[in-house]
Amino acid sequence: MTDASVSSSAPGLVTEEHRREAILEATWQLIAERGFHAVRVSDIARVCGTSTGTVHYYFPGKSDVLTEALKYCVEQAFNRQSVELRRITGAHERLLKLIDMQLPRVGFILDEWSIWLQYWAESVVRPEFRAAHNEFYARWQETVIRIVRRGQSQGVFRAEVDPENVALRLTALTDGAAIQVLTGAPRMTTTVMRELLVDFVQRELGA
Amino acid sequence: MTDASVSSSAPGLVTEEHRREAILEATWQLIAERGFHAVRVSDIARVCGTSTGTVHYYFPGKSDVLTEALKYCVEQAFNRQSVELRRITGAHERLLKLIDMQLPRVGFILDEWSIWLQYWAESVVRPEFRAAHNEFYARWQETVIRIVRRGQSQGVFRAEVDPENVALRLTALTDGAAIQVLTGAPRMTTTVMRELLVDFVQRELGA
Repeated sequence: MTDASVSSSAPGLVTEEHRREAILEATWQLIAERGFHAVRVSDIARVCGTSTGTVHYYFPGKSDVLTEALKYCVEQAFNRQSVELRRITGAHERLLKLIDMQLPRVGFILDEWSIWLQYWAESVVRPEFRAAHNEFYARWQETVIRIVRRGQSQGVFRAEVDPENVALRLTALTDGAAIQVLTGAPRMTTTVMRELLVDFVQRELGA
Repeated sequence: MTDASVSSSAPGLVTEEHRREAILEATWQLIAERGFHAVRVSDIARVCGTSTGTVHYYFPGKSDVLTEALKYCVEQAFNRQSVELRRITGAHERLLKLIDMQLPRVGFILDEWSIWLQYWAESVVRPEFRAAHNEFYARWQETVIRIVRRGQSQGVFRAEVDPENVALRLTALTDGAAIQVLTGAPRMTTTVMRELLVDFVQRELGA
């Protein structure tokens, strides 16, 4: 490959990748607002200022763009969280930061939770969704497990606790509390959700 | 009203009510299997051995039959649980029975959970679903609150615990664990779910 071919192809590749990402970005936001089944390829094209043909060029079928958008959204959220978490040395502060970043505040985090609720509803009736869902879910649980182990070696979390069991319960409690926030269930707000989760950390892990 | 009019109208009313119920019964099972958006009025009519016209006679729009079916399913589940719970005098056994009846075992309880996941996904993007959802959700939380209070007066649950806070956390943990079962998330089964919930009761309420 010559220098000339690199310089001529690289901008094209960048643009292709940018276009693909712009489509996924628009799609997941539409799914979060309207629900998985209410999004049409024409809606996506309109938001991106392009044609349905262009959307289909990157994603042959409607279900391709919808499922890739779910994955894209969750992937972006995980990457953003990972960067933030790595900045924090202490395991206790790191776990509180993870909880804080997952509170469904109005804005893009609320939209990301909306995506998870769509993901669950789809995964139950369409088992082909579960592999991707469970890969992401396992990654979330692994993050919690690693922070708990880190806290145990730092001596800030109780040594006799099983990290996997804590992760199972903390992720379940987080999902359940988030559902109550998102559906507007009685007595639940993001403030109450934070209290419940911080209280869980104190009860279960407090040294 | 004469005796004659009662005897002539009553059988008709019974049949009407039966037909309406048969439609709702078929509809919620279709929603549980295929998802809220994948169910067509023609599917409902076929399962009921009737015409789409008959379905529309009872439920003018497609969204009427779908939303009424969600409510019908949840209502039936609550009524069934209430009958079972009232048979049990001891609050501790009553709470364990509630947990047991809510485990998403394969069969109609799994289907009922599938309905809840559809309900959540819809409630987030269509706020008009929330009133009915939250009424049911509040009823579930009230059931837990009453059992906890009962256990406190029976002296089998710790007196200093706040029943509302326990209900908030037990319902969230139940929902979160059920999601993990239904999506096939790593490490979670109905057996593990039961252990988590029974363990919660022991930790939080154990006298």
